[in-house]
Amino acid sequence: MNTIHGYSPSGNCHKLRLLLEQLPLPYRWIETDSSRGATRTLEYLALNPNGKVPLLVRDDGSVLVESNAILHYLAEGSAFLPDDPWARAQALSWMFFEQYSHEPYIAVARFICGWTPLDSPRRAELPRLRERGHQALAVMERHLSRHPWFTGADYGIADIALFAYTGVAEDGGFDLAAYRALRDWLIRVRTTPGFVPMPPPAPEHAALIAASH
Amino acid sequence: MNTIHGYSPSGNCHKLRLLLEQLPLPYRWIETDSSRGATRTLEYLALNPNGKVPLLVRDDGSVLVESNAILHYLAEGSAFLPDDPWARAQALSWMFFEQYSHEPYIAVARFICGWTPLDSPRRAELPRLRERGHQALAVMERHLSRHPWFTGADYGIADIALFAYTGVAEDGGFDLAAYRALRDWLIRVRTTPGFVPMPPPAPEHAALIAASH
Repeated sequence: MNTIHGYSPSGNCHKLRLLLEQLPLPYRWIETDSSRGATRTLEYLALNPNGKVPLLVRDDGSVLVESNAILHYLAEGSAFLPDDPWARAQALSWMFFEQYSHEPYIAVARFICGWTPLDSPRRAELPRLRERGHQALAVMERHLSRHPWFTGADYGIADIALFAYTGVAEDGGFDLAAYRALRDWLIRVRTTPGFVPMPPPAPEHAALIAASH
Repeated sequence: MNTIHGYSPSGNCHKLRLLLEQLPLPYRWIETDSSRGATRTLEYLALNPNGKVPLLVRDDGSVLVESNAILHYLAEGSAFLPDDPWARAQALSWMFFEQYSHEPYIAVARFICGWTPLDSPRRAELPRLRERGHQALAVMERHLSRHPWFTGADYGIADIALFAYTGVAEDGGFDLAAYRALRDWLIRVRTTPGFVPMPPPAPEHAALIAASH
């Protein structure tokens, strides 16, 4: 059985829980609070020298890191990743878009709102992060105005990758009102069979998020 | 035949030229100078709403964006991408590492040095970019001290993805002297069959790079 080391309120980690629940595949989950240094211990750095969650460990001890690479590996041969090479390539393209043009703005804005003090100097980054995050949301909206999903014809891992932080973008101060097709897609994702929501952040983080807006 | 829209001195674009030359596969190259607004025209944004190079267009007009997704698509079935699912997953993991933990620091530092004026306020970002870039180089060095390549047992697309900006990291002010295994790997990549170097930047950019260090 695969073991996941993950921090539950992290979107990158929740991607794996969502796919594993929907496949479904059995897994162990080791809660690893990256916001409290759990990914900076010598023991953890031996598993992932890059010091990030999530990671997957197989029974033989071999390790795979990077959330979207893990999604791709777990989904191979399932309905969550198409067989057609061009559709697979498009799904992977959206997953690279997510990590380069979406997550560094939308996830980081949420992190600053919920995981840094209200007087943190990092809050000065928020206007730029929101500007770039809205650019990513506009690219998604354009696609979703013409296609129901990001993973070819059906729901799959590119949807899971993009849903993870889009579904909690409001935590980072993103108003989604203008993105009608995107909001419809969020509802479609939330009603897929076996969908599980992201566990809420601990009260201290929820309070910081609430106080940020 | 595939057409690539790319800016030759961009590492993300050079990845595709390098793989296509090594496969080898015939291709057309449309030079697209993203540093002079060529990716912000209405015509280009119709191809890639995210306004980035490179992109691939097939004969039927269908488009694929994101450099590493294009590498993965082109390498399918070739020796540049292993058949074994776990080795493929590890290669993809390194490609996500490249786009999230490497390129945003090492490529962006090079861009600031070579493509912004010497008095640009963006130069204040360089110390932080170099700190984070060195963290990525250290992760690579650790891997390369135990393994010859990033794409499983042999040279392949994860090596190409990571080589692109590591090979020109010095343009961004990164001193590679401390990374012995990494420097040996750069030499190994440069001596693979069919290797082509990145075309040099135009004189104005080369002069800015030289004046930055």
